[in-house]
Amino acid sequence: MSSTTTGPAARVFSSDNAAGGSPEIVEAMAAVAAGPALPYGADECTAAAESRLSEIFERDVDVLLVSTGTAANALSLAALTPPWGSVLCHRDSHINNDECGAPEFYTAGAKLVPLGGDDARIDPEQLRAAARHKAGDVHSVEPSVVSVTQATETGAVYTLDEIRTLGSITEEAGLRLHMDGARFAGAVAALGCTPAELTWRAGVDLLSFGATKNGTMTADAIVVFDRSLTSELAFRAKRAGQLTSKMRFQAAQLDAYLRDDLWLRNAAHANAMAARLQEGLKAVPGVELLGTADVNILFCRLPRRITEALLAEGYTFYHDRWEPGVVRFVTSFATTERDVDHLVRSVVRHAA
Amino acid sequence: MSSTTTGPAARVFSSDNAAGGSPEIVEAMAAVAAGPALPYGADECTAAAESRLSEIFERDVDVLLVSTGTAANALSLAALTPPWGSVLCHRDSHINNDECGAPEFYTAGAKLVPLGGDDARIDPEQLRAAARHKAGDVHSVEPSVVSVTQATETGAVYTLDEIRTLGSITEEAGLRLHMDGARFAGAVAALGCTPAELTWRAGVDLLSFGATKNGTMTADAIVVFDRSLTSELAFRAKRAGQLTSKMRFQAAQLDAYLRDDLWLRNAAHANAMAARLQEGLKAVPGVELLGTADVNILFCRLPRRITEALLAEGYTFYHDRWEPGVVRFVTSFATTERDVDHLVRSVVRHAA
Amino acid sequence: MSSTTTGPAARVFSSDNAAGGSPEIVEAMAAVAAGPALPYGADECTAAAESRLSEIFERDVDVLLVSTGTAANALSLAALTPPWGSVLCHRDSHINNDECGAPEFYTAGAKLVPLGGDDARIDPEQLRAAARHKAGDVHSVEPSVVSVTQATETGAVYTLDEIRTLGSITEEAGLRLHMDGARFAGAVAALGCTPAELTWRAGVDLLSFGATKNGTMTADAIVVFDRSLTSELAFRAKRAGQLTSKMRFQAAQLDAYLRDDLWLRNAAHANAMAARLQEGLKAVPGVELLGTADVNILFCRLPRRITEALLAEGYTFYHDRWEPGVVRFVTSFATTERDVDHLVRSVVRHAA
Amino acid sequence: MSSTTTGPAARVFSSDNAAGGSPEIVEAMAAVAAGPALPYGADECTAAAESRLSEIFERDVDVLLVSTGTAANALSLAALTPPWGSVLCHRDSHINNDECGAPEFYTAGAKLVPLGGDDARIDPEQLRAAARHKAGDVHSVEPSVVSVTQATETGAVYTLDEIRTLGSITEEAGLRLHMDGARFAGAVAALGCTPAELTWRAGVDLLSFGATKNGTMTADAIVVFDRSLTSELAFRAKRAGQLTSKMRFQAAQLDAYLRDDLWLRNAAHANAMAARLQEGLKAVPGVELLGTADVNILFCRLPRRITEALLAEGYTFYHDRWEPGVVRFVTSFATTERDVDHLVRSVVRHAA
Repeated sequence: MSSTTTGPAARVFSSDNAAGGSPEIVEAMAAVAAGPALPYGADECTAAAESRLSEIFERDVDVLLVSTGTAANALSLAALTPPWGSVLCHRDSHINNDECGAPEFYTAGAKLVPLGGDDARIDPEQLRAAARHKAGDVHSVEPSVVSVTQATETGAVYTLDEIRTLGSITEEAGLRLHMDGARFAGAVAALGCTPAELTWRAGVDLLSFGATKNGTMTADAIVVFDRSLTSELAFRAKRAGQLTSKMRFQAAQLDAYLRDDLWLRNAAHANAMAARLQEGLKAVPGVELLGTADVNILFCRLPRRITEALLAEGYTFYHDRWEPGVVRFVTSFATTERDVDHLVRSVVRHAA
Repeated sequence: MSSTTTGPAARVFSSDNAAGGSPEIVEAMAAVAAGPALPYGADECTAAAESRLSEIFERDVDVLLVSTGTAANALSLAALTPPWGSVLCHRDSHINNDECGAPEFYTAGAKLVPLGGDDARIDPEQLRAAARHKAGDVHSVEPSVVSVTQATETGAVYTLDEIRTLGSITEEAGLRLHMDGARFAGAVAALGCTPAELTWRAGVDLLSFGATKNGTMTADAIVVFDRSLTSELAFRAKRAGQLTSKMRFQAAQLDAYLRDDLWLRNAAHANAMAARLQEGLKAVPGVELLGTADVNILFCRLPRRITEALLAEGYTFYHDRWEPGVVRFVTSFATTERDVDHLVRSVVRHAA
Repeated sequence: MSSTTTGPAARVFSSDNAAGGSPEIVEAMAAVAAGPALPYGADECTAAAESRLSEIFERDVDVLLVSTGTAANALSLAALTPPWGSVLCHRDSHINNDECGAPEFYTAGAKLVPLGGDDARIDPEQLRAAARHKAGDVHSVEPSVVSVTQATETGAVYTLDEIRTLGSITEEAGLRLHMDGARFAGAVAALGCTPAELTWRAGVDLLSFGATKNGTMTADAIVVFDRSLTSELAFRAKRAGQLTSKMRFQAAQLDAYLRDDLWLRNAAHANAMAARLQEGLKAVPGVELLGTADVNILFCRLPRRITEALLAEGYTFYHDRWEPGVVRFVTSFATTERDVDHLVRSVVRHAA
Repeated sequence: MSSTTTGPAARVFSSDNAAGGSPEIVEAMAAVAAGPALPYGADECTAAAESRLSEIFERDVDVLLVSTGTAANALSLAALTPPWGSVLCHRDSHINNDECGAPEFYTAGAKLVPLGGDDARIDPEQLRAAARHKAGDVHSVEPSVVSVTQATETGAVYTLDEIRTLGSITEEAGLRLHMDGARFAGAVAALGCTPAELTWRAGVDLLSFGATKNGTMTADAIVVFDRSLTSELAFRAKRAGQLTSKMRFQAAQLDAYLRDDLWLRNAAHANAMAARLQEGLKAVPGVELLGTADVNILFCRLPRRITEALLAEGYTFYHDRWEPGVVRFVTSFATTERDVDHLVRSVVRHAA
């Protein structure tokens, strides 16, 4: 699955966005490069990608292709909250910490209200309270939309029941529901439920359908379940510089990504690599596993000398960013068993 | 140069954005797909593209890769005007008519002040007046930045002297200068002057360096001459969802585009195809050529029955959009002599 | 009506905003100063002002008190257009020229599309074309709201039929209608029709009900005919810093302004003073009257030496702002016959 | 000092914004109502108010008159942070909770970062960490401005040393400093230090100089210490609909407010009334005083039956808003000893 099966093992565990493109996707993109095509999404490739997503989600959906997950999130939120609204999200969410205020920019100044909960999952009781907080009071921003990340930023997944619970609370309070699916494929692969169950059947209005971390190169998408929002999203996307003229090149990526379950196979592989890593590290003296690696992210606590030894070997990964001594390993569709085993052996060796 | 040299001639003259990807560029993108790379522009490919641009512009420049020309324009303008400022531009400019208010969005509400002038070129006297209009008066937006399109939306080019004149007026009034170079390559190819002369040596602060219309697939760029703006642009780009994680894939396109003068060769070819079309049509009875096809855009007035006959043959081009009877033909790097000759023969036949 | 009936005649004809407060209004404001009152518009005074406006407009209306006409206009427009919409207005309108981009700020970047027409009145045919221009095309801003100024910035009024025509065009195209009534009282006084006929019966959704130029001190209002917009306007007003805590002080001004037809008496007086000035100047050799002084604004062309002589006498008025040689005189509720006659005599004397 | 010295005692302790206008201020406003004046702050009254503020702050300052404290805060913050910046403030601050996102609106989407600390005072250590947090990282908003409220929303004051400490931390990190002085007069009166010491000498760049809660009716101000910001603020204020034409009416209020130390006398009186209330309640069985009433706000815990009995008597005050059982009493310049004593007697009676 990875092109690095020979030569030295890859030592990049910093992020799944350090991976390249899935070979099938690269090929598909090159295949549509010749000859003219209608611009701005009127081409056949875009229609095919949309059709595939409708099939996968078991209903008609609209699709907007965008260039980044940040754009997918911010555009979605802008369609779901007025400028005087608030976005209820986890305090550790990507939209709250890692997008440089993109949601605030796209929404014309809505406010993110950070909530707590384990493993970057929103606590239902906190949501229940926040969803009604000062509703209708002009002195305060109006609770408008809930944004959940599935899988979460720490690699956990909400169970289907948990998503349904959040969906119910959201609906009862009259709010809208957005899902940041930067690692949506990983969640589906981990849970074994259908994409439909995890989204619109649980009340999700708009899904940021992340593809870049799992195999595409320059393409992400918004999947629109509430199709009354499509026209607004189209204007907003153009206005944000997100409407590409040669859209076939993004569409071809997405189409190949969805074909023959490549998206799920890639995600399952990445998840499996994290599980393999977890398995390999669990018995190493001095290594403390943290949380659960539901998808392709593994947190653990390492003695400093191991961390330093790994860095000296050329390994890349985040460390001491969340807490002193805590490191994060991220696998991807391109990570090989050999890469994982090599890392495990290094840890074992340094732990000795 | 085009992949459609056999089979039926291509009949797409609607826009250069209907073309695919230049083969060298497609290949280059595929070539960087395997293996890990640092994300967000810290990769070698991005450094290479930046280095090439510094060479081409004969000085150190900074570069921001973006996904569309609209994003390049809107981001640039946001860095050059405060929200209470005005953008002086031609009334036929792309930023004024074809970006759904992207400049207003990115600038947080600055105002575009449309000016006149032949062939979508800003009239210097109108600019001189507008550049001082109500300056310093809080009741009115503050003249802040001039945006010129080179080549223009109607396919004309500013001469080097004309650009220098606009640059002088801009500088004397204390304003900033942006160039929308959606067809910058075409202008350089047409004028035979250096990229440096046409830009920073004439006072340009930021250049939207268009590549998509001339061979890339999902990559455009901002070339930063006033490097004091780079940090601001970087924050703005991230916040706009324009900072891609796998930037190598855009950078590889740009790098190939700039290698071995591909960008200039592509543009010269597109220009030559428009000239060939002009030459072919000039003697056809009933056909009236309009303006000059300095680059790859040709306007002419056609009898309605010719327009309709061409459409019936499957030709695509804009007509009756600017004025009844006026049609626009756009060539591209992928247009072949055969395509042009085929079109000319059709016109001749229908004119008989 | 003015407090300057003795002493030297007032020589201020620059703008009706140079006048002070109507004595009845000053008194009313002082009268509510003692004792506590509920803040943010929950007081009796605010209810009274709203009730009076409902009576005057012959239907239930909602009211937002604001501190300036610019705020009234910009807030109204923000409720009537999405950020990707356009505001169709006259090119000489206050919102287009004199508000430093307030509509762009409040609407989060909507675009003002300037139209032509005599005396700052929108030409119906131009409106008809603009109202459909590129509707539904994501590349262009979406026609969303029409803004008419009644009376216009040059002192003309739309007849009732003219307003109805614009209202019909607006409605047929599915757009919304805003009226900038900075001098609404003057228009009602001039036309002799009812406030209802001039506004909601003709399709107006929101009215900027100007009061400051006609007697109040720190109070203007938005009159809401489409009450589905009230909640949004309330949030927007708070967010814009326009929701005053001690609202009784604005409400008391408005209440007094509307009591016993003071608003219409003030406006009729100002109109009469402009008519008196017109009458006095019409036969003066060298003076050319321009347009019609439907309300309290009179444009004329004066020989330069007269203009200079008047300025030397201490008169204040705008000159050479629209065209060389053109001056504008504005009267107000506070202008006296004596003030006008004094000005006429000066012109006559300098013309000799 | 209050006009309600006869008749029933006032029972309004909900907020200082429920008070009316100070008689001297009402009188001053009425006194400037007659005759013409230059608009938009070019009048003598505005110059006089600015001059008084320069005197009070012992240096040249610029002044912007605005209609609300929310506008003062939001405009100030917009001048001190770019859209991609963050505003470090206390989590209980007015800007964070009670302005419906006005700072986000005016700044075009900057982010408020809430910090902790006792009595709504920012904890210096938390500030120190936040001021450097991810600085320069484009993935995150950039720490840009610190906003402190003096006196705080809970009625506490920062000591001069505390303000200086926050000022030092702010300056060392290269950030700007804003002070929300909605109750600035109360803080000055409580601390006995000079306005200069409390502000620019400690590093404050812009001060929201609150006047409405302490005696004016429709006037607040921004005091500009960093005068390089004045031009930007003027454009922003106009654009926000905050530049009033008849500015003399706001200026007259401010001028009277500052004359003969009225502002300090009013504040000292309000503070004294809160102290008197505290003294009266401290020995009442079942009543628990909370925090310190440094200025005119007193928090305490009351048995429910007392709260209900007071409400039944017609008293207005906030209760059960922060915590069940917690009530807030606010006094003002208009509160009399009789009002306070009457309230104390009621509490004593109900506690029996």
